[in-house]
Amino acid sequence: MMRPLLLISNDDGVEAKGLQALIEMLSSKADLFIVAPDRPRSGSGCSLTSVLPIKQTLLEAGSGLTIYACSGTPADCVKLALDQLLQRQPDLVVGGINHGGNASVNIHYSGTIGAVKEGVLHGIPSIAFSLMDHDLDADFSALCPYVQRITQNVLDKSLPYGSCLNVNFPAVKEFAGVKICRMAYSCWQEEYMPCESPQGGHYYWLGGECVNDEPDEEDTDSWALERDYIAITPIRIDETDYDLKETLNDWEL
Amino acid sequence: MMRPLLLISNDDGVEAKGLQALIEMLSSKADLFIVAPDRPRSGSGCSLTSVLPIKQTLLEAGSGLTIYACSGTPADCVKLALDQLLQRQPDLVVGGINHGGNASVNIHYSGTIGAVKEGVLHGIPSIAFSLMDHDLDADFSALCPYVQRITQNVLDKSLPYGSCLNVNFPAVKEFAGVKICRMAYSCWQEEYMPCESPQGGHYYWLGGECVNDEPDEEDTDSWALERDYIAITPIRIDETDYDLKETLNDWEL
Repeated sequence: MMRPLLLISNDDGVEAKGLQALIEMLSSKADLFIVAPDRPRSGSGCSLTSVLPIKQTLLEAGSGLTIYACSGTPADCVKLALDQLLQRQPDLVVGGINHGGNASVNIHYSGTIGAVKEGVLHGIPSIAFSLMDHDLDADFSALCPYVQRITQNVLDKSLPYGSCLNVNFPAVKEFAGVKICRMAYSCWQEEYMPCESPQGGHYYWLGGECVNDEPDEEDTDSWALERDYIAITPIRIDETDYDLKETLNDWEL
Repeated sequence: MMRPLLLISNDDGVEAKGLQALIEMLSSKADLFIVAPDRPRSGSGCSLTSVLPIKQTLLEAGSGLTIYACSGTPADCVKLALDQLLQRQPDLVVGGINHGGNASVNIHYSGTIGAVKEGVLHGIPSIAFSLMDHDLDADFSALCPYVQRITQNVLDKSLPYGSCLNVNFPAVKEFAGVKICRMAYSCWQEEYMPCESPQGGHYYWLGGECVNDEPDEEDTDSWALERDYIAITPIRIDETDYDLKETLNDWEL
């Protein structure tokens, strides 16, 4: 039987420890084809490079393991792999393991989630893994059995067309368990730090803090993560608000 | 009574004709505060600038009309306006008018939609307007009564927390009417054009064609636009797949 083929990308860049950890966790189970940004691209969302061309560099071409670095965004990486670099459609697109959490509204900003959404947009079952630890040297080892089990489940059972899994791990040694969640509403506050340039102009650095708007809602990913649970949030690319669609039919437009 | 305050951005840049057209259509109804990218930023999605600081330049400070150019992405523009530049919360965030359509799955790639989602993420009713004509000199005049009416409706009735409107206009002289739609599933095909650099490396330019996966589904935005209707698609920032959430509870994870 042919081994499954997994396309992997991330937004921390091809050299990130979280990507290497993911490769180690999954290489015994599947052939891995990695196309990852040649530098950190956090906060890329689903953005694409259209005003410049992109290029890729082959870093490794072994038995069951191929690694490319790409000058584009995470979504570019997945697009380029599917359109030009891969010989056949992968069985799964996997993003991560991200250094830092991608729960709640951060699904809109994360380049790792952007890569995974690109898989979904091509009709491929997809999973994003993130650890709530931004440290470049974060320890991913406790995630291994969960990453393997979730990946195998998706390979076995697939996912509905248009949907993927957003899996976030709290930065703890022992997890309280696994919870299936919805996205919590949250809002970034005090986002910019103003500073002066040597030439006298004002500049702003993005910073701030993500404040949970629903701290008591037990069905949210943020609630689960704050209590040491692994949070699995199924997300879909159809963003239609079907309830509002009904309401709007009564408007005079 | 205080005039409404509208925060406006786009992804075609502060000099785009579509932005000027929007300003002309709405300036009699509201005070307008524009923070738009200092250059074209199509395909930015919800991406943010985090590895560099951003800066803004005041271009116009008139009675009821303020215009800034910003070095960041469309989402950066809205974040910076809300966090640093505006004296009070705007009543509405408006994106556009985009040169080119943003229907179907392109809601994930569009910087204009990214700006509008940033408004939603701050709890502000938001609308994106797009015309299916990429021409820099596109004619926006036929859109005026619809842009004014839709904007006034949202000012009067507001929108549910977490949702916004994605309004797309076909490039025709006479519209068949207005349709409330869901997002069509579509997929970009033949996306990259390979080319050689003078130094001999391969480069890839993003191109391709957006192919409608559901050409016969009458409730989709793509169906409506192909038949000269104005398509209004309500979208929400909560991307949770609630059906899949139930299914996953039966998985052994």
